[in-house]
Amino acid sequence: MFKYFSFPLFSHKRRSDIDQLPEGLNDLPPPEAEKRRTLTEKFREALSLWGYREVSTPTLEFESNLSKGIGKEMTSKMFKFQDVDGEIVALRTEMTAPVARLVSSRLDSWPKPIRLFYIGSVFKRTRRSWGESRETLQGGAELIGAETPHGEVEVLTLLRDLLGRLEVPEAAIEVGHSILLKRLVEPLPEQKRVELMNYLRRRDKNGLTNLLGKMKDSKEGRRIEAIIDLLDATRLEDAASITSEIEELNQYSSELEELAQWLQDLGIADGIGFDITLIRNLEYYTGIVFEVITPSLGVPIGGGGRYDNLIEKFGAQAIQAIGFALDLDRISKTTRIASQRKGGILISGASKTAYRISGELRSRGIPAATHREEDERRLLSFAETWEYAYIVKVESLEEASILDPYTGRSTKVPLDKVTEEISRLLNSS
Amino acid sequence: MFKYFSFPLFSHKRRSDIDQLPEGLNDLPPPEAEKRRTLTEKFREALSLWGYREVSTPTLEFESNLSKGIGKEMTSKMFKFQDVDGEIVALRTEMTAPVARLVSSRLDSWPKPIRLFYIGSVFKRTRRSWGESRETLQGGAELIGAETPHGEVEVLTLLRDLLGRLEVPEAAIEVGHSILLKRLVEPLPEQKRVELMNYLRRRDKNGLTNLLGKMKDSKEGRRIEAIIDLLDATRLEDAASITSEIEELNQYSSELEELAQWLQDLGIADGIGFDITLIRNLEYYTGIVFEVITPSLGVPIGGGGRYDNLIEKFGAQAIQAIGFALDLDRISKTTRIASQRKGGILISGASKTAYRISGELRSRGIPAATHREEDERRLLSFAETWEYAYIVKVESLEEASILDPYTGRSTKVPLDKVTEEISRLLNSS
Repeated sequence: MFKYFSFPLFSHKRRSDIDQLPEGLNDLPPPEAEKRRTLTEKFREALSLWGYREVSTPTLEFESNLSKGIGKEMTSKMFKFQDVDGEIVALRTEMTAPVARLVSSRLDSWPKPIRLFYIGSVFKRTRRSWGESRETLQGGAELIGAETPHGEVEVLTLLRDLLGRLEVPEAAIEVGHSILLKRLVEPLPEQKRVELMNYLRRRDKNGLTNLLGKMKDSKEGRRIEAIIDLLDATRLEDAASITSEIEELNQYSSELEELAQWLQDLGIADGIGFDITLIRNLEYYTGIVFEVITPSLGVPIGGGGRYDNLIEKFGAQAIQAIGFALDLDRISKTTRIASQRKGGILISGASKTAYRISGELRSRGIPAATHREEDERRLLSFAETWEYAYIVKVESLEEASILDPYTGRSTKVPLDKVTEEISRLLNSS
Repeated sequence: MFKYFSFPLFSHKRRSDIDQLPEGLNDLPPPEAEKRRTLTEKFREALSLWGYREVSTPTLEFESNLSKGIGKEMTSKMFKFQDVDGEIVALRTEMTAPVARLVSSRLDSWPKPIRLFYIGSVFKRTRRSWGESRETLQGGAELIGAETPHGEVEVLTLLRDLLGRLEVPEAAIEVGHSILLKRLVEPLPEQKRVELMNYLRRRDKNGLTNLLGKMKDSKEGRRIEAIIDLLDATRLEDAASITSEIEELNQYSSELEELAQWLQDLGIADGIGFDITLIRNLEYYTGIVFEVITPSLGVPIGGGGRYDNLIEKFGAQAIQAIGFALDLDRISKTTRIASQRKGGILISGASKTAYRISGELRSRGIPAATHREEDERRLLSFAETWEYAYIVKVESLEEASILDPYTGRSTKVPLDKVTEEISRLLNSS
C-alpha cells in the first residue's frame, strides 16, 4: 500500500499520502464492485426464494444495544464514540443483535416463525498488524421461533443451497455445539481454559499435549485428552463415542445426532461435517453452531448458530432463534460467479444525432453512452478499456459505421437502421 | 417513538428503553426495506443503461480526505473519532470526495470521461431537534472529464430519465450557478453576506427587504435588489435580463443560456427550470448546480453540480467533473414504485414431504417456506400477515390441499401434481 518516493522534494504531495485509506479499508473499482453486486443480488434472490424477508437497521446504534450478548471479545473491537448528547454510540460489529432488537420491538406482534435476511456492512476496530478487514459486507439470515432440530435443518439446508448458488468452490459446513464444548471444558480452572481455547482455535495439538502435562490422570486431564481425540474425530459417530463417556454431554450430542439423521434423510448430509471442537467467538450462542469454509481461503467465509436467549435481552418474550452470516467480501474473492454486466454501445460524437441514437438504444434496454472523441484509435482503446461491445460512429446525416473494438471490423449502415443492427449483433453474439 | 408507562413498577424494563435508537436513525422492517431495495435496483439498472460503472468506497476514512472541498458546514456535521493509532477518522457525509479520491488514485490512468455511480450510506451528526435523518442511503453518479455544457447536458438528461424510472411524482430539476451567485453577493461585507444567504435559503423576501434597508442606493444595495428580483424570476430570460446589468456575471449567465438551448434542442427542457438563487451547501462546486424537488416533500430529494477543482485536491491532474446524488430514503417515501416481491407458497408441516415440495417449488423459481403449524385458522392468518400467495397442506401420502388465504378457497390435488398446480395458479393470477 505504501509507495516510497526517494525524491520527496520534487513532489511535496506524495501519492502515498493521497490514495491512502486507513489500514483494513478498501475501495472497490468497477469490476470488483460489479462482481460483489452480482453476488449480493444472488444472495438476495436465494433468500427470497426461501421465504425470507429483507430488513435494514442503522449502521450506528447505542453501544449498549449493539454489545448485548456478543461478549467481551467482540465488544472490544467496536468503533465507539460519543454522540452530541453524550450517549455512547458505536458501529455494528455484527447484525444478529440489531435484528434481535428489531424483532423485539417493531416485529414483536408478527406471527412466528419470522424469517429475515439482511445485507450490510459490519465494522471491527482491529490493529494494523492483524491484516484483517475493518469493514465487511455481510449477508445473513435469521429464523426466529424455530426449535431444535427444525430450525437447524432449515437453516443448514438453506445455507447449503445458498453456497451452491453463490458458486463458492468446494464450500463445506462444519457443525459443532457451543454448550457441549462449554460443558466439556468447564472442569478446568479459568486460566487453563483460556489457554486451551487458544490452542483449539489454532488447532495446535502440541500446545494441547503440553497443557495436558502432569494433569494426565485427573478429571481435568481426561477432559483435555478427550479434546485432543476430538480434534481427529472427523465422523460424528467417533466424536459421540468420545463424549458419551461424559454424562452431562449426552443431551447435546443427542441434538447433533438427531440433526445428522435429518440431514441424512433429506439427502443433504453431503458437504456438512461435524466438528465438536468448533469455536465461535460470539457469546450469545446457546446450542448448535457452524462455520463455512472453502479450501481456497484459510479463513472461514461465514458461520452461525442457535441463540435462544438473545431476543429476551431486548425485553421481548424469550424466543428460540437460529441464524448465520456470510462474508460477501471474502466470497466475492473466491466465487466462480462473474459480473453480469452487459457491454454497451459507445456513440462517437456529442451531436444531437448521437444523443438520439443513445436514447433509442436505452429504450431497448441496451446500455449506451456518447463520447466526443472522433479519433478512431483513441475511440477503440477507450471502448476496449471500458468494455463496450460496439462503437457507433455517425459518419453523415444518412450513414453510420459500427465498429467492433475487439476484431477491428467495421460495417456501414444507414442511420435509421443503427439500433436495429445493434440489436441483431448483440443477440447473435 | 417514546411510550410512557404510568406504572413503571410493573415493568422495570420499559419498552421505550428497549426499542430505542439514537434520534434520526431508523430500522426498515420488511415492506419498507423491500420497497427501498426495489428502488435501489431501478437506480442501478438506469445508471448501467447510461454506461455508468459501479464503485464502492469505505464507510469510514481519514477525516482529512473526507473533508476535502466540502466546506466548514458539512465538516462540522461529521461523526469523527480517533482510530487505534491516533489518526482521526470519520463517517462520510457525502460520496463525491471519496469518488474523487478513488479517481485520483486507482482510476487515474483510465481514459476519460469516466462514468461512475455508487449506492451507499452517508452520515450527518445533526442535533435531535432538527429532525433530520442521520443516516441516508444515497445513490449518485459522477461524470469525470466532461466540459461545459456537454457534461451538464448528459447529467441532466440522465437525471431526468432516472427520476422517471424511479417514478418520483412531479419531480422537477432546478438549475442555478454557484459562481454566478458568489460573484453577485461578493461586494457585500462578510456579515451581511451570511445574513443574506440565510434569508435566501429560506426564500425569506421580508428578511431580504429589511436587510436592504438604508443600503438602497449603494452598489451593495443594488445587488440585494437584484437578488430580490431574481427570487421572482421563474424564466431564465427574466433572470438573465436582471444579471446582464452586472458585467462580471455575463460569462456565467451565458453558460446557463447555452445549457438551456441544448436542453431545448434535445426536447428535454420540460421539467428542468432555472433558479439563480439556488444555494447548495457544498463548497466544491465551481459552476452549474442543481437540485431535485417534488411537491409532495418540503425538502429536496437530491442535487449536484460541477466541481472542476476537487480531483486535483487529491493530487491528480486537474480535471473537469460533474455529478449528483439522490436521497433514496426520501424517494422511497414518495415514489409510486411498489416492492416487486413475489408472494410465495407456505407448506404446512415440517415433514420430509413438505421439505421436498418446497425444494421443488424453489427449483422452479417459486418462493417457498415450510411451517409446522397445522391449525387452519392460524395457518391462514400467518399466510396473510406474511403475504404468502397460497398454502399447501399435505393431507396424506397421496393428497394435498391448496388454500388461498385471501378467498379461503381450498382445492384437493394429488401430491405429485402440487408444483404443477401451483405454477398454473401463479401464472393465471
